Amino acid sequence: MYYVFIMGPAGSGKSFLAKALNDWLEEHGMDTAIVNLDPAADWIPYNPDIDIRDYITTNEVMKRYNLGPNGALIASIDLSVNYVNELLDEINEEKPNYVIVDTPGQLEVFAFRKAGSIIIDSLSRGSKSVALFLIESQMVLKPTTLLPLFILSLATALSHRKPQILVITKSDILSKEEYIQITKMIENPSDFIISLKSPELNIISEFPFEDIYSFIERVVKSNLENAVMVSAVTGDGLDNLYAGIQRILAGGEDFYTEEPSEIL
Amino acid sequence: MYYVFIMGPAGSGKSFLAKALNDWLEEHGMDTAIVNLDPAADWIPYNPDIDIRDYITTNEVMKRYNLGPNGALIASIDLSVNYVNELLDEINEEKPNYVIVDTPGQLEVFAFRKAGSIIIDSLSRGSKSVALFLIESQMVLKPTTLLPLFILSLATALSHRKPQILVITKSDILSKEEYIQITKMIENPSDFIISLKSPELNIISEFPFEDIYSFIERVVKSNLENAVMVSAVTGDGLDNLYAGIQRILAGGEDFYTEEPSEIL
Repeated sequence: MYYVFIMGPAGSGKSFLAKALNDWLEEHGMDTAIVNLDPAADWIPYNPDIDIRDYITTNEVMKRYNLGPNGALIASIDLSVNYVNELLDEINEEKPNYVIVDTPGQLEVFAFRKAGSIIIDSLSRGSKSVALFLIESQMVLKPTTLLPLFILSLATALSHRKPQILVITKSDILSKEEYIQITKMIENPSDFIISLKSPELNIISEFPFEDIYSFIERVVKSNLENAVMVSAVTGDGLDNLYAGIQRILAGGEDFYTEEPSEIL
Repeated sequence: MYYVFIMGPAGSGKSFLAKALNDWLEEHGMDTAIVNLDPAADWIPYNPDIDIRDYITTNEVMKRYNLGPNGALIASIDLSVNYVNELLDEINEEKPNYVIVDTPGQLEVFAFRKAGSIIIDSLSRGSKSVALFLIESQMVLKPTTLLPLFILSLATALSHRKPQILVITKSDILSKEEYIQITKMIENPSDFIISLKSPELNIISEFPFEDIYSFIERVVKSNLENAVMVSAVTGDGLDNLYAGIQRILAGGEDFYTEEPSEIL
């Protein structure tokens, strides 16, 4: 089984990408299971095969412990750890080619707390896995919003310690010019890095960090060298995303899986 | 007026430090106002002078828009922007020496979204300000949990673009040995950086990033060169924190403020 963990800030489109990737893999003859790990999820655009909400929900925790939304979010994610074995049993019963894991809406509560790494490690122990870090395309257009997110993506990778692909989501809401701008950025990070030096942007001079430019340069490169742009609505870029996933999980072999699938 | 923005991941002790710093400043003859910016706050350990919950709460937003906790958290923080002028009027009426701003529980929803930077910029426009980034002392003891948080702290600083002090909170729950360990880390970051090379830790080899060691070295240095350890319970370290704040806001001048205060 290969694990694909879908991570990213609130609103970056995790659930919609989980569904789109799941459907793409199934259409191409792969067997999948889709896991919802968010106890606070209200409505989700797919029917999860495995769902943490069968065991715990944030709303229940709010009522049971008389907590506000902040406390209940943290508590319900921390308490999710208690159900990891049940989730694993459910996954092992299905034994799909790909396990797509849709992580909680609030990245920070999951990625930077013990519970998150316990859950990720327990689920994927002994299996090859990859993380996708999602950023909305609208956030990519302005360096002042993009650079902090690029650094956040590195912090997340350092926390879960899995190979990570940067996925720029919602390409369908971009204008043609914006789409080309981001495509160029991915294809040629150097030009983008040079543009950051422009005095009008005034990004780098304001940041209190020695030799910030070379720091930023490496942050940008490490994010963009492994980036794809997708739309969960139109399906644009899903083939590139699949190629990126296979490069990491199967040495680039297309339609290679560990368990038998329809087309193998 | 000087602004002190208190930021940090959920559970890092923001509200308790806001109260402790506020009380310390008042005890030393300073005039303060304490602002709660978290619409999802349930119970807070102080009585806010200015409170976003007078205008909007996450619970109301859940009911009014029929949203789950995730959606309501984002929506209520995004909607807070509409009340920035009211908050500013309230602050200007008080005209304190220090405005202590306690930011929302979920760092990510606030620090990496447009609403957060609009609120921070609008409140502190024309005033000197400093951000405190809080990390729980328990998270500092293990490099595997600490390094992602150090990177998160840099991402936050790059997002709000204010001078930032790293505050290690809850020193009172440490054992004596742990307390000494962190004190040494702050006093001598180089030894800590060298310890990261230890093969048992295996931190650096797992992270997919070119020349990761020098990257981590700079991340650690930039965090620790401006770090203090405090306890909101015992008051330990609050004098150091105040000295750090004054270095940034008043060129290190103790008990210097812009408005008259009791002791001036």
